Amino acid sequence: MVPVPPFLAPEPVTAEDSIVEADLPGQVRQTLADYLRARRAESRALDAAFAEAVDELVGFVLGGGKRIRPTFAWWGWRAAGGPAEGPEAAAMLRVASSLELIQACALVHDDLIDGSDTRRGKPTVHRSFAARHRARGWNGSDDRFGTAAAVLLGDLALAWADDMLHSAGMPPEALARGLRPWRAMRTEVLAGQYLDTLGPVRGDETPQAALRIDELKAASYTVQRPLEIGAELAGAGEQALEALRRFGCDIGVAFQLRDDLLGVFGDPEVTGKPAGDDLREGKRTLLIAEGFQSAREHGDSDALELLRGVLGDAELDEKRVELAREALIRLGAVDAVERRITELTGTAMAALHGAGLAEPAASRLADLAVAVTDRTR
Amino acid sequence: MVPVPPFLAPEPVTAEDSIVEADLPGQVRQTLADYLRARRAESRALDAAFAEAVDELVGFVLGGGKRIRPTFAWWGWRAAGGPAEGPEAAAMLRVASSLELIQACALVHDDLIDGSDTRRGKPTVHRSFAARHRARGWNGSDDRFGTAAAVLLGDLALAWADDMLHSAGMPPEALARGLRPWRAMRTEVLAGQYLDTLGPVRGDETPQAALRIDELKAASYTVQRPLEIGAELAGAGEQALEALRRFGCDIGVAFQLRDDLLGVFGDPEVTGKPAGDDLREGKRTLLIAEGFQSAREHGDSDALELLRGVLGDAELDEKRVELAREALIRLGAVDAVERRITELTGTAMAALHGAGLAEPAASRLADLAVAVTDRTR
Repeated sequence: MVPVPPFLAPEPVTAEDSIVEADLPGQVRQTLADYLRARRAESRALDAAFAEAVDELVGFVLGGGKRIRPTFAWWGWRAAGGPAEGPEAAAMLRVASSLELIQACALVHDDLIDGSDTRRGKPTVHRSFAARHRARGWNGSDDRFGTAAAVLLGDLALAWADDMLHSAGMPPEALARGLRPWRAMRTEVLAGQYLDTLGPVRGDETPQAALRIDELKAASYTVQRPLEIGAELAGAGEQALEALRRFGCDIGVAFQLRDDLLGVFGDPEVTGKPAGDDLREGKRTLLIAEGFQSAREHGDSDALELLRGVLGDAELDEKRVELAREALIRLGAVDAVERRITELTGTAMAALHGAGLAEPAASRLADLAVAVTDRTR
Repeated sequence: MVPVPPFLAPEPVTAEDSIVEADLPGQVRQTLADYLRARRAESRALDAAFAEAVDELVGFVLGGGKRIRPTFAWWGWRAAGGPAEGPEAAAMLRVASSLELIQACALVHDDLIDGSDTRRGKPTVHRSFAARHRARGWNGSDDRFGTAAAVLLGDLALAWADDMLHSAGMPPEALARGLRPWRAMRTEVLAGQYLDTLGPVRGDETPQAALRIDELKAASYTVQRPLEIGAELAGAGEQALEALRRFGCDIGVAFQLRDDLLGVFGDPEVTGKPAGDDLREGKRTLLIAEGFQSAREHGDSDALELLRGVLGDAELDEKRVELAREALIRLGAVDAVERRITELTGTAMAALHGAGLAEPAASRLADLAVAVTDRTR
């Protein structure tokens, strides 16, 4: 299990905290549980075997996750003056929680595409259904059955995300505003996933390509669009929206860049993943792209060869992980990424402070920005 | 190419036909083309390589299909008094057309799950992307890339279906009514697909299991829910809705049963598929289930063995297809299915006639009911 990062752990309730804000991740989980209980009952009425498959999806959605997208959506709402209590706040909590169903689709389908075995310390959905097939001695290929179940349950999560949004209880005119970033977000994350798949296939190693994927898959999907959805639903003006967009895009990319550094340099005790796991998986991050670019510029063919060799090597040992780390530091790639994180955090904070957003949301967003980009995260 | 079946071919424009109704499939295609042109431009603004992938999806959606779900949605609208011209009709045409995007997701993901090579006479989406990978000499596995592209483009079609529905221009209160069957339909078709996958895996050969899948995957998804969506949007009363529901469920199952018979007995010139193709694909239809049940009841182990042998045999030759046909006739399976089609068509017609639906929709639905269940379709 990935430990809950400090920035999302419940904080002590203070005088100005609402009940919801005292434990946002817990409230999101409860909201999802309520929604999925009803969908599960409907599924049971359709067919018992289908309901059994739905249970797997429900377990996946409720079983973990940092609820980071709902958290940003909530604070976008509050930054634009949305209330923290009452029926409107309850509707907003349902909207925010629906983002976790999109995320469920993204993870289930991504794990299938990547052929991953585990997620959150448990078997991935396609592996779990393949195991069920074997355990019950069913006919045909266990892998094919696992693939089918993962494709269909991911689709179900994506359809239910829209259903949850549209039945959240938002007034139609507010919903119409929120649909603009909602629509953009879903297309952008799928574009990001496609480019992420295409990168290694085409051998595109430029920093520009890596940054574009970070903008689409991380910044837009994880921070910017969730913030905008919340803010639009609360009726934010154009100035506040523009500030949140710039803040969200910059913090979203910075967050991903910090993740990339932790994926190579992070302490397994903190990240919950083996050291250097991003290298084994062959991720084409900005860190790696900067390394390649610097090695080429300096004619450092040893470093080029080393990086090419470690990337995607599933059998990579700790010694070669350490060599790759040294090379990335020596090539200036780590410094380049750290500089960019600092710049992005700075421009994000400037956008936030200039916008006159409502408190306590402005302060909470500033805290989140520091927390998600911090070296000791 | 599957030839356009007579019941969906454009008919001569008569005095009472609106422009839209003179060529519904053509109008649906044009509406999809307009919608997808805008999505394609947005995708191009995100990334050129992503837009290239989107082009594949657009080509798939515009490249064929009988537009049967939009046709039923349209006549559900008209049956409940929705107008055939003007801005409301244009909004309804967009809603009806959005069903084709759900269908695109269903087909792209189904073809991936089934490992199918061709669809509408062209390579399936996953095969097409695998071929592109080979043609460009890209890195890694062509199959994995094809799988990734098909998963993501199917997801995109599903997300865009919701986007198209919600931007169709329907008044919020009408849309709220239409969302009830829309939601049910998406869950039901995924339940049907899952049970369709599970059937052969569990070796479930009962007529009950086959009929349940027909109800979910064919009746609900293809006829009943599209009719209901149109009728709800037009503000149908409960009596009309109930009549359309019963009509839609019965005609939907009858339509699927006719399809099952054609899949084994159909003329390749008319169906566009090789003779007996459903046997090669191992489909567990009601026809097959009735055959198994009758063979077991009569202790006909030769027939049981024959049916088990031909089902799913990709190399099945014309001689053994003919033997299977003879066995299904001799076992009474064909008669049983024909009887059920007749019964279902009868109850559907009774529901339709008792409901006092608006003309010309009532007559058109009766014509459609006859056409889609007819032996010479």
